[in-house]
Amino acid sequence: MPRMLTLTRHAGDLSCVRAMRTLASGLCAALLLFTATAVQAEDGYALWLRYAAPDAGAAGPSATRVTQLVVAGSPGVPSATREELQRGLAGLQGGAPANGDAVTRAGALLVGTPAASPQIARLGLDLDGLGGEGYRIRSAVVDGHATTVVAANEDIGALYGAFHLLRLLQTGQPLDGLDIREAPRLAVRMLNHWDNLDRYVERGYAGQSIWDWHRLPGWLDPRYTDYARANASIGINGTVLNNVNANADVLTPMYLDKVAAIAGVMRPYGIKVYLSARFSAPMEIGGLDTADPADADVQRWWRTKADEVYALIPDFGGFLVKANSEGQPGPQDYGRSHADGANMLADAVAPHGGIVMWRAFVYSDEEPVDRAKQAYNEFVPLDGTFHDNVLVQVKNGPIDFQPREPFHPLFGGMPKTPLMMEFQITKEYLGFSTHLAYKAPLYEEVLDADTHVQGPGSTVARVIDGSLDGHALTGIAGVANIGSDRNWSGSHFDQANWYAFGRLAWNSDLSSRDIAVEWTRMTFSNDPAVVEPVVGMMMASREAVVDYTGALGLHHVMGRGHHYGPGPWVEGGPRADWTSVYFHRADGNGIGFDRTRRGSDAVSQYAAPVAEVFDDVTRTPEEFLLWFHHVPWSHPMRSGRPLWDELVLRYDRGVETVRGMRETWAGLDGRIDAGRHAQVAAFLAIQQDEAQWWRDASIAYFQSISGRPLPAGVAPPPHPLEHYKALEFPHAPGDTQ
Amino acid sequence: MPRMLTLTRHAGDLSCVRAMRTLASGLCAALLLFTATAVQAEDGYALWLRYAAPDAGAAGPSATRVTQLVVAGSPGVPSATREELQRGLAGLQGGAPANGDAVTRAGALLVGTPAASPQIARLGLDLDGLGGEGYRIRSAVVDGHATTVVAANEDIGALYGAFHLLRLLQTGQPLDGLDIREAPRLAVRMLNHWDNLDRYVERGYAGQSIWDWHRLPGWLDPRYTDYARANASIGINGTVLNNVNANADVLTPMYLDKVAAIAGVMRPYGIKVYLSARFSAPMEIGGLDTADPADADVQRWWRTKADEVYALIPDFGGFLVKANSEGQPGPQDYGRSHADGANMLADAVAPHGGIVMWRAFVYSDEEPVDRAKQAYNEFVPLDGTFHDNVLVQVKNGPIDFQPREPFHPLFGGMPKTPLMMEFQITKEYLGFSTHLAYKAPLYEEVLDADTHVQGPGSTVARVIDGSLDGHALTGIAGVANIGSDRNWSGSHFDQANWYAFGRLAWNSDLSSRDIAVEWTRMTFSNDPAVVEPVVGMMMASREAVVDYTGALGLHHVMGRGHHYGPGPWVEGGPRADWTSVYFHRADGNGIGFDRTRRGSDAVSQYAAPVAEVFDDVTRTPEEFLLWFHHVPWSHPMRSGRPLWDELVLRYDRGVETVRGMRETWAGLDGRIDAGRHAQVAAFLAIQQDEAQWWRDASIAYFQSISGRPLPAGVAPPPHPLEHYKALEFPHAPGDTQ
Repeated sequence: MPRMLTLTRHAGDLSCVRAMRTLASGLCAALLLFTATAVQAEDGYALWLRYAAPDAGAAGPSATRVTQLVVAGSPGVPSATREELQRGLAGLQGGAPANGDAVTRAGALLVGTPAASPQIARLGLDLDGLGGEGYRIRSAVVDGHATTVVAANEDIGALYGAFHLLRLLQTGQPLDGLDIREAPRLAVRMLNHWDNLDRYVERGYAGQSIWDWHRLPGWLDPRYTDYARANASIGINGTVLNNVNANADVLTPMYLDKVAAIAGVMRPYGIKVYLSARFSAPMEIGGLDTADPADADVQRWWRTKADEVYALIPDFGGFLVKANSEGQPGPQDYGRSHADGANMLADAVAPHGGIVMWRAFVYSDEEPVDRAKQAYNEFVPLDGTFHDNVLVQVKNGPIDFQPREPFHPLFGGMPKTPLMMEFQITKEYLGFSTHLAYKAPLYEEVLDADTHVQGPGSTVARVIDGSLDGHALTGIAGVANIGSDRNWSGSHFDQANWYAFGRLAWNSDLSSRDIAVEWTRMTFSNDPAVVEPVVGMMMASREAVVDYTGALGLHHVMGRGHHYGPGPWVEGGPRADWTSVYFHRADGNGIGFDRTRRGSDAVSQYAAPVAEVFDDVTRTPEEFLLWFHHVPWSHPMRSGRPLWDELVLRYDRGVETVRGMRETWAGLDGRIDAGRHAQVAAFLAIQQDEAQWWRDASIAYFQSISGRPLPAGVAPPPHPLEHYKALEFPHAPGDTQ
Repeated sequence: MPRMLTLTRHAGDLSCVRAMRTLASGLCAALLLFTATAVQAEDGYALWLRYAAPDAGAAGPSATRVTQLVVAGSPGVPSATREELQRGLAGLQGGAPANGDAVTRAGALLVGTPAASPQIARLGLDLDGLGGEGYRIRSAVVDGHATTVVAANEDIGALYGAFHLLRLLQTGQPLDGLDIREAPRLAVRMLNHWDNLDRYVERGYAGQSIWDWHRLPGWLDPRYTDYARANASIGINGTVLNNVNANADVLTPMYLDKVAAIAGVMRPYGIKVYLSARFSAPMEIGGLDTADPADADVQRWWRTKADEVYALIPDFGGFLVKANSEGQPGPQDYGRSHADGANMLADAVAPHGGIVMWRAFVYSDEEPVDRAKQAYNEFVPLDGTFHDNVLVQVKNGPIDFQPREPFHPLFGGMPKTPLMMEFQITKEYLGFSTHLAYKAPLYEEVLDADTHVQGPGSTVARVIDGSLDGHALTGIAGVANIGSDRNWSGSHFDQANWYAFGRLAWNSDLSSRDIAVEWTRMTFSNDPAVVEPVVGMMMASREAVVDYTGALGLHHVMGRGHHYGPGPWVEGGPRADWTSVYFHRADGNGIGFDRTRRGSDAVSQYAAPVAEVFDDVTRTPEEFLLWFHHVPWSHPMRSGRPLWDELVLRYDRGVETVRGMRETWAGLDGRIDAGRHAQVAAFLAIQQDEAQWWRDASIAYFQSISGRPLPAGVAPPPHPLEHYKALEFPHAPGDTQ
């Protein structure tokens, strides 16, 4: 595997370097030249698991050396844990330590469970409350030898602890005096792949699906193993393999054999496989003439199908369902409720310990008064009627993964139902894979949002972790940005969004900045001259996208269908709530969607203290102004500027931030390997061009509506509005097929 | 770039090894362990340009060392030549030699043209008749120093010579006493990419298109450069970027900017870019209401479009056109001939030196008496009417890239028109990318076929190289098997089909076995214990596919649409000549398509001596028996067996050959790097399963028609025919979208 290649290379080169240095041989110069080049060459495939040797000079990883590796346990998860530690230490230390069955020397690393390791058992560590996935990392003395201990109740906890330890080494932290206690806040931490069976990825910008269905089960791409390693390293424990716009074929025997093969690769890494289930599958592949959840044959078909799946995959996770949304079939086709549909499927998998994740992203075929209100209106009446093994999966905001949305009013609105967060990792609305946009601040903003449903501190994080309403079944999903591109995510920086999602899924209290720092140190360098500017770019990047695509609460103003580039003029077509004008409502007098009590009254879906703020134009945070209010172009902003001027200046600010990111990155030339530096530089150039395009087209359009002059010193768009409206991109990637 | 990474790694490791050996350091052992692993790790990205250091022990590359590298010339092709030689020698010799402006020491390598290098000019080498692309490689004494000289009339010839020299080193041949004189037989040697603008590849089994249209021109994937290097290394000098089932959008300004960016990467490697032109483009993107080639506005539109293209890409190659075939628009839509259409486009590009390649793969919408006859009937009457810069591109056989077809009767049938060969490199009908099928024997068989149009020796090779009819404009095209898969072609062995196509395009006299040997030595190892068995597998592989998919002249018996797996029962649908029963004509009495004078008379499209053989069931080679004759199941074969028994035994023979290939490959475990060995082993297991499936399903079907018992000792199919007919593969890759 390429990964192993890179590692053994580092190892070999470093051994050389060390030997050479001790010999001052004439060959040293040439040798160091070669090794330096080799060590720096990167293509992104290794993700944040590069296990690179310390950067020459810079404050590198810990000098602590592990002298002996003892991983207790039999094949399966313990073997994967042992291999990962050998691989990681070989890279970080320039050679793998000796393996042992028991600690026999100082500097050992002891990993496992009390059940598998008598030495761990004798330490009598308190592992209560860590559950199966938690772990402790402790500096201890084992049979007289100074040892670093990673202990857990179950093997998977030990694997997570091992990755934590490797992260400490990768980020240059010492191994002395460790006393770490970690357990995940959420039970289900998963990726959703919107991948079709022909390998097309809906909203995918990183090549094809990594699932090579045609060559499965005969060919198990080593990439599957590296995918599992990367996910386990950040605590992800589930993956939905296929698109929520599902094809029933994935439930046929031929495909279930392929799914089982993938599950076999995921198992040693604690990752359960799930499938998106098409609600009409009993008709499409079952030969029934209905999919009515109240029909006995339909119920029997799903029970039998579940038995078939679990016979092949005993630890199968369950089903994810998108029903009665955007044309997908569902229980409402038969006059049944979402709960009727979800419960029928839940009963089929319940005997096997499976769960059903039922998506709340629904809106009827009739155009609603306010699409933002619909999920709440449909689901709140069903609160308390879902069976115990059902999670309702709710997108972070009420519309659809926009660069900024207020939190979804369902959070806090269904106390009797466990709600699962759905974030989008792939950047459908944030510049595809060429724009640098670090999404952790978006995730953090939503998780920290206070619903006030049980008074101050009723954060969205506490809704989904079950602590607010006492739910044990909890979860979070991220729509994956993973594809067949060599660097997995299409761009090197998009790897950070995958990484940050996993870290926040494990612990929502982590700060997006701290996550950016550890990711940067592992992915690029521990050199502060790299870490600080890179983290600075990342932390400014999401707000830049908000600025150049439409700030102050504007939303859904992108190109139609493919969602590539600006489209504030989009109108007409099949339904009003698929247009831009429906959402921004700009006219000669003003702009914004009135969702106050005097308008669509969407504000009333929030708890009173929140509703009052959003209902009051003077108290609504300016970043949500046009989401909740229709205000005059002359509306005075806190800056003292009228809304129109403020909006225009935000577009310019967004472009300016990108320009600054480009400068910063250019300054890192030589400190980042040439391959990755070149691609990021090229993508930042694309981003600057496209930010300018968003800015120019949006200003041209809104000025044609507002009729107001540009603020002094602001450059007019270089082309007339018609130029921007005429641009077409019929082959843009990721559109719904 | 990964390639550079691998190289520098080799270089570094080898310096270590050498240094270590001189020091007998205690670190040696560990070091060698690391480097050994590193050197062996491969993922196929490097293709046949691995430039690997000599295999320890085995008969490795030449011990000759190049001590100095002198490449004469300025930026562009000479720079690419210099970089390739530095890269190659660094890998092969464990370090790049010194660069110089002139030869100053023994063991130098001098590369260039007499115009660029006074030292080459002074040698007075005879370069007459080599043209611009030919070269000489000569061991000579330059200013008193023993030197290897690569000389050519133009820079591109020197680049081709440099790759030839690197091939000598890679395959372990000495550099002493060299006197090589090479020039290509054909002027245009190109790949045809059936790649759509959304990166879907028609009949592609290696991932997405390598052309990342959406991120072009802002992002130039380093893969484009490696693609150019690989093609230049085998003499390919042209590439058609988009599918012959073309989309007119590629001719819009937005896409032409992207095409120009690719052309810029190809230029230093002597590769011209071409585009497939959609005949109705003047209507789709030109706003005209007709595409009639006789219409003055249409002619003007194409001239203007050509001017636009050449303004961006001065060395643009020209257009490839699929017209009036399988639903594509064309001149016949307006009552004009193929010549009318081709000449109109040819006149548009002629002022710029461009050419038009007009495909002869046509068949009318009405179902013909015999589809095999149609291209001949439509094109022969047009012989002599095409303008000078038109090539008519003819598939190797009269149907469509089957595992075996007789040569196309148009070869020899249009003496006044330069005909261009179209081979398929991608394995649409030979097992996609998982079956090992080396196609060079197929290419060789066609090129060596004797048309007899001007007496014995009128081979197809002499038709296309212009020597038979005195044409200067000559060419050959291969439908690419290249995609975004890490190993480019989907499987490691499919790389050999790309390689062999290029080598035969350069010199049709090369033997497929010799090509297999040099490819294997460069791709896997110079170890005879590897070369001999691997070449044996390759040389047997194509006949195995013929056997297990349907031997003795059977053709077009695959699954409908996707062409995956067996489908001899395919009937009905839009047109009879898209079914299997149309082609095999099996009934209770016998099987085969009667194309004799008593049947469709397709035989009469061949020259008399050939026609007489094909018309006579006793003289027709058995591999074409059922192509030309409908014979009884009891027809006596040369083996003495009745046809039915012979056919059944061929199916078994095919499966048996694959089983043997698996055994042979398993025996190479340890001699091939683990990564590539594992994938090939997995694919051979898939191939054996699918060969068995082809065999079982075909025998089950044909036995249901023949009603005859299986020969003694032959195992009956494990399932009833209905089982095989019921299998469906709606998501199989590569189907026409």
